[in-house]
Amino acid sequence: MHFFSDNATPVCPEAMAAIAAADRADHGYDGDGWSARLNGAFSDLFGTEAVALWIATGTAANSIALACLCPPYGGVICHEEAHIVVDECGAPGFYTHGASLMALPGAGAKLSPDAVTERLKAIRPDVHQVPAKAISITQATEYGLAYRPDEVAALGDLAREHGLGFHMDGARFANAVAHLGCHPGDVTWRAGVDILSFGCVKNGGMIGEALVFFGDRAEARAAEAARWRKRAGHLFSKGRYLAAQLLAMVEGDLWLRNARAANAAAQALAEGAAGRLLHTVEANELFLCLSEAERARLRAQGFDFYDWGADAARIVTNWSQDAASVRPLADALRALQG
Amino acid sequence: MHFFSDNATPVCPEAMAAIAAADRADHGYDGDGWSARLNGAFSDLFGTEAVALWIATGTAANSIALACLCPPYGGVICHEEAHIVVDECGAPGFYTHGASLMALPGAGAKLSPDAVTERLKAIRPDVHQVPAKAISITQATEYGLAYRPDEVAALGDLAREHGLGFHMDGARFANAVAHLGCHPGDVTWRAGVDILSFGCVKNGGMIGEALVFFGDRAEARAAEAARWRKRAGHLFSKGRYLAAQLLAMVEGDLWLRNARAANAAAQALAEGAAGRLLHTVEANELFLCLSEAERARLRAQGFDFYDWGADAARIVTNWSQDAASVRPLADALRALQG
Amino acid sequence: MHFFSDNATPVCPEAMAAIAAADRADHGYDGDGWSARLNGAFSDLFGTEAVALWIATGTAANSIALACLCPPYGGVICHEEAHIVVDECGAPGFYTHGASLMALPGAGAKLSPDAVTERLKAIRPDVHQVPAKAISITQATEYGLAYRPDEVAALGDLAREHGLGFHMDGARFANAVAHLGCHPGDVTWRAGVDILSFGCVKNGGMIGEALVFFGDRAEARAAEAARWRKRAGHLFSKGRYLAAQLLAMVEGDLWLRNARAANAAAQALAEGAAGRLLHTVEANELFLCLSEAERARLRAQGFDFYDWGADAARIVTNWSQDAASVRPLADALRALQG
Amino acid sequence: MHFFSDNATPVCPEAMAAIAAADRADHGYDGDGWSARLNGAFSDLFGTEAVALWIATGTAANSIALACLCPPYGGVICHEEAHIVVDECGAPGFYTHGASLMALPGAGAKLSPDAVTERLKAIRPDVHQVPAKAISITQATEYGLAYRPDEVAALGDLAREHGLGFHMDGARFANAVAHLGCHPGDVTWRAGVDILSFGCVKNGGMIGEALVFFGDRAEARAAEAARWRKRAGHLFSKGRYLAAQLLAMVEGDLWLRNARAANAAAQALAEGAAGRLLHTVEANELFLCLSEAERARLRAQGFDFYDWGADAARIVTNWSQDAASVRPLADALRALQG
Repeated sequence: MHFFSDNATPVCPEAMAAIAAADRADHGYDGDGWSARLNGAFSDLFGTEAVALWIATGTAANSIALACLCPPYGGVICHEEAHIVVDECGAPGFYTHGASLMALPGAGAKLSPDAVTERLKAIRPDVHQVPAKAISITQATEYGLAYRPDEVAALGDLAREHGLGFHMDGARFANAVAHLGCHPGDVTWRAGVDILSFGCVKNGGMIGEALVFFGDRAEARAAEAARWRKRAGHLFSKGRYLAAQLLAMVEGDLWLRNARAANAAAQALAEGAAGRLLHTVEANELFLCLSEAERARLRAQGFDFYDWGADAARIVTNWSQDAASVRPLADALRALQG
Repeated sequence: MHFFSDNATPVCPEAMAAIAAADRADHGYDGDGWSARLNGAFSDLFGTEAVALWIATGTAANSIALACLCPPYGGVICHEEAHIVVDECGAPGFYTHGASLMALPGAGAKLSPDAVTERLKAIRPDVHQVPAKAISITQATEYGLAYRPDEVAALGDLAREHGLGFHMDGARFANAVAHLGCHPGDVTWRAGVDILSFGCVKNGGMIGEALVFFGDRAEARAAEAARWRKRAGHLFSKGRYLAAQLLAMVEGDLWLRNARAANAAAQALAEGAAGRLLHTVEANELFLCLSEAERARLRAQGFDFYDWGADAARIVTNWSQDAASVRPLADALRALQG
Repeated sequence: MHFFSDNATPVCPEAMAAIAAADRADHGYDGDGWSARLNGAFSDLFGTEAVALWIATGTAANSIALACLCPPYGGVICHEEAHIVVDECGAPGFYTHGASLMALPGAGAKLSPDAVTERLKAIRPDVHQVPAKAISITQATEYGLAYRPDEVAALGDLAREHGLGFHMDGARFANAVAHLGCHPGDVTWRAGVDILSFGCVKNGGMIGEALVFFGDRAEARAAEAARWRKRAGHLFSKGRYLAAQLLAMVEGDLWLRNARAANAAAQALAEGAAGRLLHTVEANELFLCLSEAERARLRAQGFDFYDWGADAARIVTNWSQDAASVRPLADALRALQG
Repeated sequence: MHFFSDNATPVCPEAMAAIAAADRADHGYDGDGWSARLNGAFSDLFGTEAVALWIATGTAANSIALACLCPPYGGVICHEEAHIVVDECGAPGFYTHGASLMALPGAGAKLSPDAVTERLKAIRPDVHQVPAKAISITQATEYGLAYRPDEVAALGDLAREHGLGFHMDGARFANAVAHLGCHPGDVTWRAGVDILSFGCVKNGGMIGEALVFFGDRAEARAAEAARWRKRAGHLFSKGRYLAAQLLAMVEGDLWLRNARAANAAAQALAEGAAGRLLHTVEANELFLCLSEAERARLRAQGFDFYDWGADAARIVTNWSQDAASVRPLADALRALQG
């Protein structure tokens, strides 16, 4: 039973069915009927006029969003353990043509308004220094924590006050919203987010995330993003297969159902791992203190997961699991205690 | 009955089946079992040691290939109507960080050795001028013509002589090889091609082309291309769905069968359009003199296609057609003559 | 006596004196008293509110101007023999992050409104094609011809009509204005030019050109250009030495006096070369039909210049010459006729 | 009496004389007689075969060096207070097309081998993470400390061991060598440095630094750097005026004499400021604890300098000063103590 990543799982049946249903001739690129429904579907979901583009991967979505918000000579304030810093091989530098990532520390991979304020104060307003132009946060964070609406809003206020764009990497946005139980608008546009990378692949999709633009400049930024999408080779000929997956996710509540299942699995494991948690479990990731011997014992029982440094492990649950299906691991973790 | 583009067609059943068969958990990115088979499958296909990467689109494949062959201060010699010049929104400039496209004229969108030689002679070897660093050709060309093995080799010789990389955009490579009846190696590595963008989507795939590297530097260039693929947001989490399609295409002769069907359909239409052809029909595209009134008559009968300027039309056949299935259009074209 | 290039000449005494006068401590970069006077001096010269930045070279000035006018996915319409196309090693591609140069033919290296209009018509307004975003012309052209005010204005009208930025490479702007006898505003802002690269080095300076911004967006564009100047390593610590040269040129009429001297020398040579001129001589360059034997004879007499292909030569006069001082070459040219 | 920066001072008489001596016609760009002597002069200075290019500014020199050592997807390990991080508006990101700066802490702005080793260990060797490709240090550091030969060599060993390029920002290289009393080769090529930005402007020049390439790949890297120099608009038409200054500096011992004068001035001030020094004074910079009131008192006496945060000041001496000439400030500092 693997807990490597929600990346590694199969496609959920509803998404696969949507792909099959899209398998007929239509106009190429994003000229098809499915792509045409995206704006409406995401506007309904978020309760505001939004513009949505399908985009192949989270890395591309994040980078194109940042290219829309930050000029080449600008900087993006973010957490030092953010995916854009650590796991994208410098993609934001490629798409922004060399903008700087201004990486800050913070518990649980969360960016705090204080840290942002302090960083902003340290920048001289002359041409020698890189000016901050955007803030980017990850929801849920790289340690599986969800920013509450007020936490997002505090950063959104800072962004507005300093004229910065505000981007949210929502690779696991569904898991965060499922945990928070809030309206998806509460942690995005109502809190000042300009562009959201809305994750789909980790949550049961095959290929394709959505880039969602909010606010007055949504149209203009999406038009620019559409240029980047083409120019980066991301405008698929048969985009309808991506659009169909996204619609399957958000025209009903599939995105939340899948995320709830993964979250419930994570909670079940968290109970089994009492006392070992490095971070509170809010979404579908667990970071556990586990010695080398303990990890070996779990693996011997058929549980796969990644090491997290020398004395810990990362365990990720996914849409295809739930509290019941992960009981064997929960029990195995409990058994380690004895 | 639409003849807009081979882009717009559904996915062929074999590729769809391959996708379904890949729908189980495996390692993420290109760590899965399907991706691991690509090098072998393409080496077998081409009869030489080759390295193959799946890549989302033809635009991305072309651009990453050029980034591997041409430094930012260099130039790529190509045809002025090449896809990389006309239809990629400057993607090669993005991926190469500003290299120049040295666009040359030539009948049928073919690059001739003479034109290349003349262009090379005009470049002073000082730091003020952009040095040519690569040649890129399209097989079949944008007008549906296939370079014969000796034509490719003549350009390959020039490339070797002047120390240039040699790239082939093979969005319709299968159609060209199906027409030529040669071994795929004869128009690629045996003729000096370093990197091939091997098309799959226009030939029945859903998403994904292959970037195939030949020769001594194949490993090194592919390693660099893998960096670009990640950095450009093209390393899909669930790459196995792309790899599976490519394997379905090339582990048997599906790639040729599909192309032969499309080519046969094109030949059937060419016979119906005698006297109207702007270019010899070799692959699956027809460029026909058709007045506005004639185009309207055809459309009134349910045939869809693109205008090509004021007095012509472009008609593209695809894998799902054959000589029989396109007879209605062939007959309608013939009827226009009367 | 050398006629290689106006690049190769010494610095004129007034510029050298200005450098000496600037040789005392002041604030670094462009915080000094000389740099502070540039906006005023160029506003006076052009008869309108202008913003002026010193910039090291013509290549840098041109590239930064284009970066202010054209996004990475856009195109710059220009002449195929323009300096930005032929002699800058792709610098515009570097500064614009990959924008395309849309190079057009035209007699005397002049861009015609008809050619521009035709090019614009050929661009589809979809994301697949590079949209034109700017026009760039050279005044005087690479063949030493001056655009008249109405010729510039016709292009300026096109630019405004299509929402394009309008840049002028004025490496030999002074020579053009000296020939035209017009007000410098007549061939720049009054004719729609947004940004001018104002040449100084070819006209007697040591190091440093001016980038001059006109119109409503002058301030905003100059602020962005100041970022590029720093980011490209062009913000010199001791900028006052550049500013002082520019002020020496334009606070009086030195820029015109120097240009007139060079132009007069060119006219004297043109008279000596009757019947050999490939282009009308308007500024300070001559392109002459000269056989290999004739060129050898001239060189044997001590005249140095560049070949221009197999049967011609390029001769460039400069600020340190005049009609009298170049008589020996004029006579030698005349003697060839006999 | 100003102590703002060594940037703000006039040009030293020897450099001005060299400029005047270069004021005659010669070939343009770097085809002149002065530029031709650079390789020899720097090879003599460093006691090894070296290749040297003039380059306008330290920012350009640093960025071009890094572009020669680090691919766009790579990272440069450096100090978090390095000039390349803090004061170049992201120029390294521009020239390297988006490479990452991997900024590390360290006392006195010095990079320690331990910190570098730890950073290298944290990088996974997969395509998701940015691989380190170069180390860059500043000699003397941003706090005026000089790396000893063994300190440079320890970093050079690390660089060689991990296949990293090694760059030295020598904006105040002369001051460091003057302090160390070593051979300039001891802290450069003998210690593994590949490329040195050799400062001249802060040490009495007008415009122009040298980029010096050492080792087996010197020729190849310099050829690439020459492309960048042109492509970035840094290939001045009249490069001889830069070359002449550099030759005046290094063909004799002017570079050391000027640096010694500045260093001596700094030492004299350091004695006057006993107990206030934030960093040991080794080169020509002092960082002093000075309250707001104390700074006001000094300024009232005519001494100008920059604040360094709320309770300190930065004082920079220069080539035009010496121990005697700065006595007034030394005395004034002493007087504050009482």
